[in-house]
Amino acid sequence: MLTVALPKGALLIDSIKLLQAVGLDFSAFLDSGSRLLQIQDPTGIAKALLVRAQDVPVYVEYGQAQLGIVGYDVLREKTSQVAHLADLRFGKCRMSVAVRDSSPYRSSLELPPHGRVASKFIHCAREHFNNLDLPVEIIPLYGSVELGPITGMSEAIVDLVSTGRTLKENGLIEIDILFESTARLIAHPLSYRLNTYELRHWVEQLQALTLSAV
Amino acid sequence: MLTVALPKGALLIDSIKLLQAVGLDFSAFLDSGSRLLQIQDPTGIAKALLVRAQDVPVYVEYGQAQLGIVGYDVLREKTSQVAHLADLRFGKCRMSVAVRDSSPYRSSLELPPHGRVASKFIHCAREHFNNLDLPVEIIPLYGSVELGPITGMSEAIVDLVSTGRTLKENGLIEIDILFESTARLIAHPLSYRLNTYELRHWVEQLQALTLSAV
Repeated sequence: MLTVALPKGALLIDSIKLLQAVGLDFSAFLDSGSRLLQIQDPTGIAKALLVRAQDVPVYVEYGQAQLGIVGYDVLREKTSQVAHLADLRFGKCRMSVAVRDSSPYRSSLELPPHGRVASKFIHCAREHFNNLDLPVEIIPLYGSVELGPITGMSEAIVDLVSTGRTLKENGLIEIDILFESTARLIAHPLSYRLNTYELRHWVEQLQALTLSAV
Repeated sequence: MLTVALPKGALLIDSIKLLQAVGLDFSAFLDSGSRLLQIQDPTGIAKALLVRAQDVPVYVEYGQAQLGIVGYDVLREKTSQVAHLADLRFGKCRMSVAVRDSSPYRSSLELPPHGRVASKFIHCAREHFNNLDLPVEIIPLYGSVELGPITGMSEAIVDLVSTGRTLKENGLIEIDILFESTARLIAHPLSYRLNTYELRHWVEQLQALTLSAV
C-alpha cells in the first residue's frame, strides 16, 4: 500500500490539506488526543506515518514510505538519498544567523574567528562558515538555541526563523540568511522509478496542485 | 551567580524538589504556561536554566552552568567533559534492546548480522553491538523509535524504557538491557576544583541528601 510519511509539528495541517485535495484523507492525525503513529486513508488506498520532521527523510530513504513531506531545512541538514519532487510552497521560513541585539556584529564575517555558534542545524551552520572561510566552533544544541547568546555561551546562533517573534522576545537580531525553506514533496527514488503503487499518478496530481497555487 | 542547568521533561519535578530541600527554589518553572528559560531563586543566591535534557551537559561543559541535573543515559550518549558528582536515585529507567513480540529474536546476539537497529541513542547502540562483535546498521531517529520494527525498517530498537508501557502498546518486547539509568548531579570540572560560588558547599548538601535517601 502507498505509504506517506508526514511530519509532526508546523507543517502537518497544510500537509494533510494538500493530500485531502488529491483524495487522500489523513485528518484523523489532527484529532486532539490521538496518539496514533500510523493510519489508513478511509478509502483504503494509502496509509500515513506520523513522525518527527527529521525522521521523514529516513522513512523515505529506507523505502518504508514511498512519499514524504518535509521542510527543505531538514533536507539540507540531513542530505538524505531521496528524490526531491516539488516545492509545496507552504511552511515558509528561513535559516538565519542571529546575534544579540547589543552585540557589535552585523554580518557573519564580522563574527570573531574561533567564536562560537550554537545550532540545532550543525551541518548547515558548519557549511555556512566553511564557505566564508571563517573558523568557528559549532555547539550542537537540541532546543532553545537562543539561550546560547543570552547566557554568553556563543556569539551567534544558526536557527530557523519564521515570524521572528522568538528572536525578538530574546533580544536577538538576524544578521544573515543562509537559505529560504518551504515544505517539499520527496519520494523513494527506486519506488518512483518503478512507479510502485502508481506513485507517479499521485506525484503528478500533487505537482499540478502546487503549480496551480502559484 | 551559581547557575544550575535543569532538564525539561520527566526529571524536572524531582530535580526542583531536590534543590528546594537544600534551599534553592526554582518551582516557578513548574507554572503551567511559563515560557521562561532562566529564573533566579527568590533568595537571589542562584539561577537556573531550563533546557532540553541533552543540552544540560553542554551548558555545564562550557561553564555557563556550574551544576546540572541530567539522566545517566544522556551522559553515556554524549560523553561530555563534566564531573559526575552524585547518583540522585530518581528517574529510574533502562537502556534496552527491543524487538517485535512476534520476531524470533530473544537476545541481541540472535539478531541477524547486518540487520538494522533504530535508535535515538546511536552512540550507545553502536557501542553495544560493537562490544558483541555483531555488525548492524544503526538508523538514527529522533522520535517514535518503535515505528522502526512496526514498519519493518529495522529488526530492533535501542531505547529508554521506564514502565514498558510504550513497548507493550506497540507489540514490542525487551530482549537485552544495556545499562540502568538514574538522574545524576554533574558539575563543571574547573568550577568544582576552584570552588566557584561555594560550589562544594551545595554539592555536599545535595550528596548528603541523596545518601540519606538510600
